Amino acid sequence: MIVMKGNKNMATMKDVAQRAGVGVGTVSRVINHVPGVKKSTLVKVKEAIKELNYIPDEYARGLKTKSSRTIALILPSIWHPFFSEFAYYVEKRLYKEDYKLLLCNSNRDPKEEAKYIKMLKQNKIDAIIAITYSDIGQYIYSNIPFVSLDRYFEKKVSYVTSDNYEGGKLAAKELLAHGAKNIAYIGSHSKYPNATMLRKDGFDDYLKEHDINYKEIFLHEPVPEADFINHLLEMLTAHPEIDGIFCHTDSLLLTLRKALIQHGYRVPEDIQLIGFDGIKMDSAHSLGISTIAQPVEKLANGAVDLVLKKIADPSVKNEAKMYPVKYINGNTTK
Amino acid sequence: MIVMKGNKNMATMKDVAQRAGVGVGTVSRVINHVPGVKKSTLVKVKEAIKELNYIPDEYARGLKTKSSRTIALILPSIWHPFFSEFAYYVEKRLYKEDYKLLLCNSNRDPKEEAKYIKMLKQNKIDAIIAITYSDIGQYIYSNIPFVSLDRYFEKKVSYVTSDNYEGGKLAAKELLAHGAKNIAYIGSHSKYPNATMLRKDGFDDYLKEHDINYKEIFLHEPVPEADFINHLLEMLTAHPEIDGIFCHTDSLLLTLRKALIQHGYRVPEDIQLIGFDGIKMDSAHSLGISTIAQPVEKLANGAVDLVLKKIADPSVKNEAKMYPVKYINGNTTK
Repeated sequence: MIVMKGNKNMATMKDVAQRAGVGVGTVSRVINHVPGVKKSTLVKVKEAIKELNYIPDEYARGLKTKSSRTIALILPSIWHPFFSEFAYYVEKRLYKEDYKLLLCNSNRDPKEEAKYIKMLKQNKIDAIIAITYSDIGQYIYSNIPFVSLDRYFEKKVSYVTSDNYEGGKLAAKELLAHGAKNIAYIGSHSKYPNATMLRKDGFDDYLKEHDINYKEIFLHEPVPEADFINHLLEMLTAHPEIDGIFCHTDSLLLTLRKALIQHGYRVPEDIQLIGFDGIKMDSAHSLGISTIAQPVEKLANGAVDLVLKKIADPSVKNEAKMYPVKYINGNTTK
Repeated sequence: MIVMKGNKNMATMKDVAQRAGVGVGTVSRVINHVPGVKKSTLVKVKEAIKELNYIPDEYARGLKTKSSRTIALILPSIWHPFFSEFAYYVEKRLYKEDYKLLLCNSNRDPKEEAKYIKMLKQNKIDAIIAITYSDIGQYIYSNIPFVSLDRYFEKKVSYVTSDNYEGGKLAAKELLAHGAKNIAYIGSHSKYPNATMLRKDGFDDYLKEHDINYKEIFLHEPVPEADFINHLLEMLTAHPEIDGIFCHTDSLLLTLRKALIQHGYRVPEDIQLIGFDGIKMDSAHSLGISTIAQPVEKLANGAVDLVLKKIADPSVKNEAKMYPVKYINGNTTK
């Protein structure tokens, strides 16, 4: 018979050890995910934990292991379908791995990011996954395992990314295949380079290879929406022949489409648009636009893979994982 | 002169106490947010913490206070603009209050919710804010401060909600004002009642008051998308006069609009649609649909207010906060 001890008649680690027929140290190793416990022992201890409904005290556990089994996800804003889809899949996977997800909205403010890092350094998290468009030196030197999305120029960091370069080529190819004759690129770039800039490079290279000129609007971030629209309208006044635009993101496509329609242009009859990201409003509702889609679930799982490797061995070499994109035909091309 | 002690030359609590000219106990009270510290002392200690770049060990702190300053947000899926907007504002506010947000996607699965509760009971969180459509008895008896969204029939729980009843009345009124003559309601309900059902009640009461009949499709959740569409098409075959539909949510409106257009109906020329929620894809992009909008930022702040009250005094009486909705005119009405 197992006697419940302590407050609220909760089972203790000793109760679990007795039930499983092992030492308290073994139970502790199982609870704290220390490798090297025999599988048969693991099964016995887990069964005993389940039978006794034993709940380990995470504070005592954290004090011992200095591990919280919590990973922070820092992103510009969870209120954006690309980031919320990414967060959805990261959390889903972490949950399977018995990790928890701490959510941080940085609002693209480096100061906010720095505050989060400081907070996170207080032993409360094991690792960071971040989508950041500011200087990430602060992360690299923080001694917390770190994985980034879309970061390519720094060899010091592990990251996952889509094949932005091929995506840019694909956008050019599809605009032409859909009958656009005079095309343009509209986008923006942050102070610190990241992999999304390869979209433009791929677009540019594809058109150069085919001896095709194109117009471009390429602005420094942050760009107010009105600036994009004013530049677009100026470009269309100077070059009324433009009939196809590659938009750096789907969000930008939505902004430009709205402005075009308001100014009497028909999409796609007058001007065709292809975006980038493949955002869906939720798992059931696509936006119906033509776009180069990123494999968000793969990116999320790839980021978790890398971060778990880093946690298991902080000295592991940084690595990069790249995933293919695909064109999705929608109602913004003919 | 302050001597840095311990590993990595980190400042200790004793260093902070010396610098601030107070006792170590006072520093501990400030760090652990214990009320009753004089404001001038608070300022001195906070300055010393800043000057020494002192970082408290959260585990030691948690062990002492049994507080993690972490609040869990359980919602069906972060990959949905209503929930991601809610999460965005909850996190923003918690951050200001020096709390962290743990994100949990339940996928509307009561078993997943129960797993989260168990995990969360391990002393790792101070409270739960949940959007749940399953039985929440498990939360109520978990002894963790709990606040819900859209829960109204249980007096045992604190909750925030929009004025769903007035929203339903408003939807009926606006459909009629936009010229619809033969109207319908399409929606669904979960096994456990929640405040969103009042949308239908308000709609019903408004039309009864005005002696107007309407058709309805009201299905038991979970409802596969195809079922909604089949019921809709059957209803329109039986009642081709229908020219206006109140959809229980914006998501449902998007599903129905797509199906209507695929089957040759024009929206809004043939059939006008009004949704509920007022979801925006992100802070910059609305969906352009006609809808009854919930004040999501207010709901989020209200939920945090209630949860902080509960944390400060777990014996505080449960309360409900209701916020007004408003009609937003879009392209799904004439």
